[in-house]
Amino acid sequence: MKKISDSTISRLSKYYRTLSRLVEKGVETVSSQGMADLNNITSAQVRKDLSFFGSFGKRGLGYNTKILRDEIGRILGLNKKWSIALVGVGNIGRALLDYEEFRKQGFLFRALFDKDPHKIGSEINGLVIHSDENICEIIDKEGIEIAIIAVPAKFAQQVVDALVECGVRAFLNFAPVAVKVPEGVQVKYENMSIELEALSFFLTR
Amino acid sequence: MKKISDSTISRLSKYYRTLSRLVEKGVETVSSQGMADLNNITSAQVRKDLSFFGSFGKRGLGYNTKILRDEIGRILGLNKKWSIALVGVGNIGRALLDYEEFRKQGFLFRALFDKDPHKIGSEINGLVIHSDENICEIIDKEGIEIAIIAVPAKFAQQVVDALVECGVRAFLNFAPVAVKVPEGVQVKYENMSIELEALSFFLTR
Repeated sequence: MKKISDSTISRLSKYYRTLSRLVEKGVETVSSQGMADLNNITSAQVRKDLSFFGSFGKRGLGYNTKILRDEIGRILGLNKKWSIALVGVGNIGRALLDYEEFRKQGFLFRALFDKDPHKIGSEINGLVIHSDENICEIIDKEGIEIAIIAVPAKFAQQVVDALVECGVRAFLNFAPVAVKVPEGVQVKYENMSIELEALSFFLTR
Repeated sequence: MKKISDSTISRLSKYYRTLSRLVEKGVETVSSQGMADLNNITSAQVRKDLSFFGSFGKRGLGYNTKILRDEIGRILGLNKKWSIALVGVGNIGRALLDYEEFRKQGFLFRALFDKDPHKIGSEINGLVIHSDENICEIIDKEGIEIAIIAVPAKFAQQVVDALVECGVRAFLNFAPVAVKVPEGVQVKYENMSIELEALSFFLTR
């Protein structure tokens, strides 16, 4: 299969949201032009993105919103539940624990870690905060597949190293620092300044 | 001037970070290939992105890291301070108030709003939480240029409408819902599920 670009994947996420809203509204079909308008892109881009994954829709009839939503959901792996570990239960960590969207999309927190002795042993949303002892044991037991890193920048690399050792292959990093990982391990960065910079760019011009 | 795509702008943000790290490490020059390697893209992409804004660097000598960093900073509007309002002081809002990166990049919180009577009047980081009365007066007084929306989805549109009325032209929306704005007003969305979906896509294949 062809290499799928990050921007295609992030557009699939947007299509998924657009289609979910259409299904909620009772809209049964949508054209690639309709999808394009709702996402501020061209219909050629919509067709190209979808063509990576097979053939959807019928010429002249458009896409069935429900079928296409479920298909994109499957492509994105949203038809299953994912077990998530959160490392770093500070302000950002707590905000993430309460972020409704994650649960809705099947991303479920199963393990919390922090190094602050005052936090270790306490519970949030029914989950105990663990120290960094026996990490691998907990990761194994909870079947953790994705780790969210919300620790200070200087600790991010060592935390990721430890989790890679335990077999975790996917990371979402909120620490504003690049981390190195071996091949076959994926890191995504959530840098909340990026969008603000796009706004300051817009206001500057 | 040509239309600059969102992906070019977000790569400029990445270049800015890469160059800042190089400057910190004492590296004085970098080639487009070096920049490309550090950002996992091609050197042609780097040259193309920069070409929108004039001619940087000398053939065979590469870019001066400090000059290019400052130039990109100016393009992104990071050479000035931006006055930010936060609407919704819940978990996400609080996490944002403590997010070091914003202050470092010149994004400064100047006004807080919430509709919870228990929060109104209390202070966080020296800023009073205001109700939604006299919004425009406060926006004017504090010279607010960008508003961060961290309210529940169902309130996002009315909050944005009120702020557009007050003359705010740039929004960063954390509420997982699309909002409508008039021409000349920009909205960016921060959806933290998008990156998790890219990870589940990666793990699914």
